[in-house]
Amino acid sequence: MFTIVHRIATTEPAEKVLDALTTIDGLADWWTTDVSGSASAGGISAFRFGENGGFDIAVTSVAPDHVGWHVVDGPAEWIGTDIDWRITRDGDYNVVLFEHRGWREQAEFMYHCSTKWAVFLQSLKALVETGTGAPAPRDVQISNWH
Amino acid sequence: MFTIVHRIATTEPAEKVLDALTTIDGLADWWTTDVSGSASAGGISAFRFGENGGFDIAVTSVAPDHVGWHVVDGPAEWIGTDIDWRITRDGDYNVVLFEHRGWREQAEFMYHCSTKWAVFLQSLKALVETGTGAPAPRDVQISNWH
Repeated sequence: MFTIVHRIATTEPAEKVLDALTTIDGLADWWTTDVSGSASAGGISAFRFGENGGFDIAVTSVAPDHVGWHVVDGPAEWIGTDIDWRITRDGDYNVVLFEHRGWREQAEFMYHCSTKWAVFLQSLKALVETGTGAPAPRDVQISNWH
Repeated sequence: MFTIVHRIATTEPAEKVLDALTTIDGLADWWTTDVSGSASAGGISAFRFGENGGFDIAVTSVAPDHVGWHVVDGPAEWIGTDIDWRITRDGDYNVVLFEHRGWREQAEFMYHCSTKWAVFLQSLKALVETGTGAPAPRDVQISNWH
């Protein structure tokens, strides 16, 4: 199994990060504007990216320092994978440690998703710091795969 | 061992990507302005990031579709690791497949470097597409670790 990992940090309150991860309005402001369902523990959120399809994600855990997701539908490579968000403290900073675990192959699509996650984490950081993220469809394009 | 992977693509010529990876002037325009040494096969390049230190990297391979680096000095986590740049073609796009291999631990510093590599790959893409990248010290900051 292979894992995508990322780290960002902000001096903004951890509650703002948690809000962006656990509410539909928050998720719409940094990942994709086309999101519906429930982002609370036990809920399922449906994220869509126009012609590029999307993901259905079950929220397995919500705590002040952790949000856990399990992918239940989407591209074959994503189904059954887990996404973890841990929020830790480092001095004046709230740190977000991101893991997307359970990739069965280090396929080219995983390379793309790793870079794209970094783009969306920058969008999340911008959202909590400035009030404006860059969710799809106005996300930063990195390649022919968007 | 753990690996950081990324993927970007551009419609600009592969030669521009190769030039940005294999010349000191090119590297200075997207990774760090403080780079010296030789970026050709068999050479060693010294990359510095002000008070954050830097890396000495041996160039192990240069070909039209591949550049190989081996880290010979820098943070303990980086020493002995390998960085591979593969350039492939997908329709109208030249694709850059990036691997940073040989991480002995999935430590928090690896999470940071994964996100930071994505930031610098965006800088590389901007350089070949617009003529202007965002190398250190004017790189995009992602956290308290820069």
